[in-house]
Amino acid sequence: MTSKFSARNRLVVAGATAAVIGAGVVGVVTVQAQDPDPATRTPVVADVADDSLTQSTHLSIAAATEAAQAALDAAAKENQRVSVAVVDRNGSVLVTLRGDGAGPQSYDAAQQKAFTAVSWNAPTTELSKRLESAPHLADIDGTLFLGGGAPVQSNGAPIAAVGVAGAPSGDLDEKFAQAGVAAIGR
Amino acid sequence: MTSKFSARNRLVVAGATAAVIGAGVVGVVTVQAQDPDPATRTPVVADVADDSLTQSTHLSIAAATEAAQAALDAAAKENQRVSVAVVDRNGSVLVTLRGDGAGPQSYDAAQQKAFTAVSWNAPTTELSKRLESAPHLADIDGTLFLGGGAPVQSNGAPIAAVGVAGAPSGDLDEKFAQAGVAAIGR
Amino acid sequence: MTSKFSARNRLVVAGATAAVIGAGVVGVVTVQAQDPDPATRTPVVADVADDSLTQSTHLSIAAATEAAQAALDAAAKENQRVSVAVVDRNGSVLVTLRGDGAGPQSYDAAQQKAFTAVSWNAPTTELSKRLESAPHLADIDGTLFLGGGAPVQSNGAPIAAVGVAGAPSGDLDEKFAQAGVAAIGR
Amino acid sequence: MTSKFSARNRLVVAGATAAVIGAGVVGVVTVQAQDPDPATRTPVVADVADDSLTQSTHLSIAAATEAAQAALDAAAKENQRVSVAVVDRNGSVLVTLRGDGAGPQSYDAAQQKAFTAVSWNAPTTELSKRLESAPHLADIDGTLFLGGGAPVQSNGAPIAAVGVAGAPSGDLDEKFAQAGVAAIGR
Amino acid sequence: MTSKFSARNRLVVAGATAAVIGAGVVGVVTVQAQDPDPATRTPVVADVADDSLTQSTHLSIAAATEAAQAALDAAAKENQRVSVAVVDRNGSVLVTLRGDGAGPQSYDAAQQKAFTAVSWNAPTTELSKRLESAPHLADIDGTLFLGGGAPVQSNGAPIAAVGVAGAPSGDLDEKFAQAGVAAIGR
Amino acid sequence: MTSKFSARNRLVVAGATAAVIGAGVVGVVTVQAQDPDPATRTPVVADVADDSLTQSTHLSIAAATEAAQAALDAAAKENQRVSVAVVDRNGSVLVTLRGDGAGPQSYDAAQQKAFTAVSWNAPTTELSKRLESAPHLADIDGTLFLGGGAPVQSNGAPIAAVGVAGAPSGDLDEKFAQAGVAAIGR
Amino acid sequence: MTSKFSARNRLVVAGATAAVIGAGVVGVVTVQAQDPDPATRTPVVADVADDSLTQSTHLSIAAATEAAQAALDAAAKENQRVSVAVVDRNGSVLVTLRGDGAGPQSYDAAQQKAFTAVSWNAPTTELSKRLESAPHLADIDGTLFLGGGAPVQSNGAPIAAVGVAGAPSGDLDEKFAQAGVAAIGR
Amino acid sequence: MTSKFSARNRLVVAGATAAVIGAGVVGVVTVQAQDPDPATRTPVVADVADDSLTQSTHLSIAAATEAAQAALDAAAKENQRVSVAVVDRNGSVLVTLRGDGAGPQSYDAAQQKAFTAVSWNAPTTELSKRLESAPHLADIDGTLFLGGGAPVQSNGAPIAAVGVAGAPSGDLDEKFAQAGVAAIGR
Repeated sequence: MTSKFSARNRLVVAGATAAVIGAGVVGVVTVQAQDPDPATRTPVVADVADDSLTQSTHLSIAAATEAAQAALDAAAKENQRVSVAVVDRNGSVLVTLRGDGAGPQSYDAAQQKAFTAVSWNAPTTELSKRLESAPHLADIDGTLFLGGGAPVQSNGAPIAAVGVAGAPSGDLDEKFAQAGVAAIGR
Repeated sequence: MTSKFSARNRLVVAGATAAVIGAGVVGVVTVQAQDPDPATRTPVVADVADDSLTQSTHLSIAAATEAAQAALDAAAKENQRVSVAVVDRNGSVLVTLRGDGAGPQSYDAAQQKAFTAVSWNAPTTELSKRLESAPHLADIDGTLFLGGGAPVQSNGAPIAAVGVAGAPSGDLDEKFAQAGVAAIGR
Repeated sequence: MTSKFSARNRLVVAGATAAVIGAGVVGVVTVQAQDPDPATRTPVVADVADDSLTQSTHLSIAAATEAAQAALDAAAKENQRVSVAVVDRNGSVLVTLRGDGAGPQSYDAAQQKAFTAVSWNAPTTELSKRLESAPHLADIDGTLFLGGGAPVQSNGAPIAAVGVAGAPSGDLDEKFAQAGVAAIGR
Repeated sequence: MTSKFSARNRLVVAGATAAVIGAGVVGVVTVQAQDPDPATRTPVVADVADDSLTQSTHLSIAAATEAAQAALDAAAKENQRVSVAVVDRNGSVLVTLRGDGAGPQSYDAAQQKAFTAVSWNAPTTELSKRLESAPHLADIDGTLFLGGGAPVQSNGAPIAAVGVAGAPSGDLDEKFAQAGVAAIGR
Repeated sequence: MTSKFSARNRLVVAGATAAVIGAGVVGVVTVQAQDPDPATRTPVVADVADDSLTQSTHLSIAAATEAAQAALDAAAKENQRVSVAVVDRNGSVLVTLRGDGAGPQSYDAAQQKAFTAVSWNAPTTELSKRLESAPHLADIDGTLFLGGGAPVQSNGAPIAAVGVAGAPSGDLDEKFAQAGVAAIGR
Repeated sequence: MTSKFSARNRLVVAGATAAVIGAGVVGVVTVQAQDPDPATRTPVVADVADDSLTQSTHLSIAAATEAAQAALDAAAKENQRVSVAVVDRNGSVLVTLRGDGAGPQSYDAAQQKAFTAVSWNAPTTELSKRLESAPHLADIDGTLFLGGGAPVQSNGAPIAAVGVAGAPSGDLDEKFAQAGVAAIGR
Repeated sequence: MTSKFSARNRLVVAGATAAVIGAGVVGVVTVQAQDPDPATRTPVVADVADDSLTQSTHLSIAAATEAAQAALDAAAKENQRVSVAVVDRNGSVLVTLRGDGAGPQSYDAAQQKAFTAVSWNAPTTELSKRLESAPHLADIDGTLFLGGGAPVQSNGAPIAAVGVAGAPSGDLDEKFAQAGVAAIGR
Repeated sequence: MTSKFSARNRLVVAGATAAVIGAGVVGVVTVQAQDPDPATRTPVVADVADDSLTQSTHLSIAAATEAAQAALDAAAKENQRVSVAVVDRNGSVLVTLRGDGAGPQSYDAAQQKAFTAVSWNAPTTELSKRLESAPHLADIDGTLFLGGGAPVQSNGAPIAAVGVAGAPSGDLDEKFAQAGVAAIGR
């Protein structure tokens, strides 16, 4: 998460009177019939020092899908019916797969296991043991302290996690989750 | 959001039998009395191709706080009592400030205006006009189509947004929000 | 959704004193150390007439993933950053993919568009027009009347839907959603 | 859940320009004044291979109602005031009955017991014991580990569950739930 | 809702030292192993004047189930797939039935239509027209202003309502709801 | 809860073409400009047998307010800052009072204690002990197993409950709650 | 809201090693068996400048209850069945009263009307007209733009509001709400 | 929280026909094109006795921001990545700061720790020990019994609290929270 962003970037303030910068813009609304001519707007541009910005590393959606699919396949090989989720370091869900015949409880559980793993950068089986000394960690919203969550790391830092739920034990769920992690970039 | 991540990074699979990599690790749980000796664990290491990873640019918390404070100050100069929020490109809230005497409706509204601005990369006054042709955009969860949200851009892409609520009009709220944006990196 | 289930099926009542039927059982909890010997339990078996059961048709997770990926690929070809969701006829989410760089509003929106399409068995652009005569359809929980949802049908009945959100217009979103539908079973 | 769906089915893509297939269609919106003439639309038809589809078995609403009523009657015979719920394998509620004089806590509890039973394909009294080795199963959303939930099985697989709450003990609740299960197809 | 409760009733204060009055008690917890001997407790009894109590009239669960079933049957006769709900005057749900093949949006919608009808003591088609002069009635939590809700009255006062959703028009839904109302006590 | 409702009541079906019965009607919407002339509507009237209806006993709002105020006064006498709630047998809140200086956690807690007491017809201190044998009762939505909830009974059945929270111990909270119960009808 | 707080107040930092200051402390937990002897703790005391603190004016619970009761009485005089709520300037609910026979929609609606009135310091009938120019104000969480909310002011600033719901028109509801406001301090 | 409010204040009833008092008004909506001329409105003014009003002491937003920043700085000095929250005595959030690289679980956790500390006027490490005798305190909504919350007191009463989450132990989190408290007014 060290910044590789060099020099001073141009930061554009998009105001009512500011230009929305053209081609390549991400996610600009284009229902634009009623907009004034962008060419006539005056851009408000500010320079921003490096230390205003940070960079963070994420799994691409391609890699996240690959991981989720690999986890599902690993479960299928053992005839287990599971749901799989991949979440980002910020806890946002990137991918979910509800496997054929997986129980209804497995869908949310997979997401929460992944959330837990990425939050503390450790597999959930390991984290579950830690509740002995701090049981109320399990009261934090969005967490689930059951085996089945495995973090994805880049240079030791958590950047994502894979969560699996629905197999008869947390150990099995976690085995499949790690198969998902192992498939990334292979 | 172009990737500056070079070569192949080392991706560590943290499993029940894997090492949690040591110093500098982000967010590792350290209630570790009951953990087995990390020195005896076998790291599971995988190489990951560049295309598994993406980089994204964020405001530092220092810059986000600066922006929020500047928006609040701008409102105070005009004797307006407002709440301010800064959200990240992924919609996560970075900073909230509930100004002295701001109405109770302003706190959530500020967050939702910022969320709306970062979602469509435009100020919310402008976005509000667009509802004429697509009124049900306003039904999307987390959005609020009232003036007072202003995006923060880096190279034209939205990386954050400032939201302000509580002033007597959306135009005023947005003026303060843009004062917040303008303060970044100054 | 016509029943192809023939003859009388054996319906097993799993009670405290009933056997949990062995191999091939779906989703049985297996943290079983403390369970009494299943061999000694007396199964409670009941015959159930055909008319107690119905059959319904679903997309396999493989087909649903294929559809979601095809929708994402179609968007990528046009440099659009979107999220994609596939939901089942019962409204349960089967697959979600949050595309690289997609706005934070797109993830929930994609699911709600798919939910809307499968509920009324029509594309959401078409359904949106219908709000003219029944505007409060849009107040039903979980729905979103914006273009981007496309139903998957089997023999004319809706069995799933694909939802896409994040492109600059609902028409574009729906084009990608239909690319997803078209990819099924190809 | 083995597929009985034969040959290649015709999968209809319902697009803005596609026909909504006629008679017998499930759930098509018919507020159709403003729709273009369906006769003039061009159907988009795709063939879908068998392996894109799965079949699942459900209780008919008639059978589910029968089960719920039987559970309520069993409780009434013992002068117990309870609520009853029947949920599907996907966790969707099929039937609820709030019995005369049942406590307010019983309505949600009955649903959650049924959800728990269908998720792990076992009665909730049995599942409750299993928390000794995996206590955080009880943190999964929608579950309730108290006696009173009983699964309905078809060929050993869970297809639904009956939940009862409000009697003075979980054992009583579960006795009534099983009376409900036993009534199916009788 | 006029009180028919005569004379002064005996009101029992159940405290830590008070007796829980015996047979016929509603909903007393009976996991009682660890309770002190009830015979040794001193009842705390107070007299309560008539004007402390009111009586209200409700549908029995038997009548509510009858109504719900009749509504479902009416829909089935016209080959419509719907969900049905009956709610009490206090807005509590008494019965829900998710009809075979009903769309996923119909289950909550049926409850909200019934809630709306019982709240204003009128059918929802009629109430929907009233939004012309007071459109923000539709913003009240739990309401849905679409045809399909019909109140049940006793002496002119609303005591319950039947809600139906899933048919192609609100008029049809409401026809079925009224068939449900008409079946009560027949 | 025994029915005192005599003979056959007239049950009015309020349909699109049915009369809404006139004066004294409860809760009829009166934004009636656009309604057809009520005088010209044809009432749809049905007879309903007694067994379709039940009667239930409630605290009047006057009595409930009296109880809440008495509980608050009892706390004030001991210089304790608390919140108070009174709930009905159906779990609906009748009265809340947030005492001067009461902690923010006390408002919801008071309601949940009252809900718990009315659900199982016993004071919450007593109910809390029962968790030893059935700990997961505490997982039921809306409950709180801390001293401070006291049921109000009529002929032994629970008709309401008073909940108090904010004092330094549950025993104190419950003492105040019982002062509230004791004040009813005095 | 001008500060009348004089000189420098003593601000006590309550830490693990700090004393919790004794008599008169508000809301200190007193389940204290396991606490170390407070007499042996070292207080951590800091001086805080005046400008760190603000003062705000609130209705006492006595005045708020008086207002709520007066509103309910005003409705009763006109045979209207309503719910009443009083909220604080920060949007926290102080008092709720669910009147005898009030519709189930009225309880939440009364709170939301009060919230709306205190947020913008104006009666909700007036605020409702303002939606013509800013319709999406009504999308702000917790608001309801229907007549029936009236602010309570001190020196022109809003310090609370009374909300009423359940009468046949918003004008009537608001008349009762204002009767509540007028009763304060009379 | 003793009232310093002197004499009888003028309480203004803002009704449909009442003036909204002019300059210095807090939060009045100013989308006022359609409002009648304020000059022509007749103020409704009432006198209110002192005992209708209370005063409460709060942290200014400046002081709350100072505290939050100091807590974040203290964590940064020890290379810990945390989120920080400051809440008011009423439980409302005043400030949040999501530190760079803080885990996604830390944002809500920081708020809940602060809420817990202000509710019982003690640090959360201390409160956590108290769960031994009253474990179900942890079931109260909005609370989190983990180290990291520290109350801010004025004259011994809690007026706010600082919460920190994300460090490897609750003790560390609380050390940073107390650094935040200590910074107020310094």
